[in-house]
Amino acid sequence: MRKGEQTRAAILDHAVQLASAVGLEGLTIGRLAGEAALSKSGLFAHFASKEALQVQTLERAAERFVEVVVKPGLAARRGEPRVRELFERWLRWPAEVPQPGGCIFVAASAELDDRPGPARDRLAQLQRDWLDVLAGAVRVARDEGHFRAEVDPEQFAFETYGIMLVTHLASRLLRDRQAVPRARRAFERLLESARAG
Amino acid sequence: MRKGEQTRAAILDHAVQLASAVGLEGLTIGRLAGEAALSKSGLFAHFASKEALQVQTLERAAERFVEVVVKPGLAARRGEPRVRELFERWLRWPAEVPQPGGCIFVAASAELDDRPGPARDRLAQLQRDWLDVLAGAVRVARDEGHFRAEVDPEQFAFETYGIMLVTHLASRLLRDRQAVPRARRAFERLLESARAG
Repeated sequence: MRKGEQTRAAILDHAVQLASAVGLEGLTIGRLAGEAALSKSGLFAHFASKEALQVQTLERAAERFVEVVVKPGLAARRGEPRVRELFERWLRWPAEVPQPGGCIFVAASAELDDRPGPARDRLAQLQRDWLDVLAGAVRVARDEGHFRAEVDPEQFAFETYGIMLVTHLASRLLRDRQAVPRARRAFERLLESARAG
Repeated sequence: MRKGEQTRAAILDHAVQLASAVGLEGLTIGRLAGEAALSKSGLFAHFASKEALQVQTLERAAERFVEVVVKPGLAARRGEPRVRELFERWLRWPAEVPQPGGCIFVAASAELDDRPGPARDRLAQLQRDWLDVLAGAVRVARDEGHFRAEVDPEQFAFETYGIMLVTHLASRLLRDRQAVPRARRAFERLLESARAG
């Protein structure tokens, strides 16, 4: 990365943390300036508008997600091991990349689902991309004969996402220490139902 | 209900709708006055503070939830039929009680999980109560012999909640028309894994 890009990425890392806590709507250039200890005028040079800042914050979070979840997950052996690795990496994502208010994508989903605009569109596309990565790994597991031929990859991805969402809610809102063990148990059941004879 | 209580409930119904769209943090007495076409001073007579308004809005939403989901669900025949009925009523909840920004409990969970205070505490308790209702119905289904003796009611409730959360996200953020059919398929799989021989 060149110097300018590094600075930009560092600013956006602050933006990801801030948006996780106050929401993308609460993420203003003024607030980010305070958080990152930079001048507002300096930030305006990087981000033309609040909307641009929101979209680029989502992009930066997605970049980090690819680094710590998608790439290492996809590096695992084809078939069930890869599906498992994606799940395990995903479980660690909110801790791996500091997000004090919880996963930025979960927070943004509840916040933006009724707010049309570029941030909402980008978020929806990022979520679809991730569901596609998961479904793709399931399809490979099916082709490898690890999973039964009747397994529906999109359905599997949908159910896995449900496990992640309830784990996020149970561990954060309910402070339930059983959240992660329960998540693993739920995922094992899902794998079992998919597994070939 | 007496007149005063009716007025209060009607105001809080507006508050539920508003909070669903703008979040509990966005729910101010000024904004509610505009939405409900009432004077701010009149509203101050009902709600001493923004915090009190937030808590009472959650209570009102919970009251409606009990009316349209919990009571009719629990009225179904003991065992699997009751578990199914709770799920089916729950699927219809965001449509049954108008919440333009999606389920108020889902929105509030992402919003309040990192904001200590009475609204967060009340929300967490309401979510636990609902998980307990679900787990209770599962326990009955186990006692009736509909479900296997090894079924863990809390785990079942956890997984069912995951299905509801991803259905909410898929239908609202992703505008996925397959969300509800997928939810039913996921729930059928869960029932199947719990069912006795």
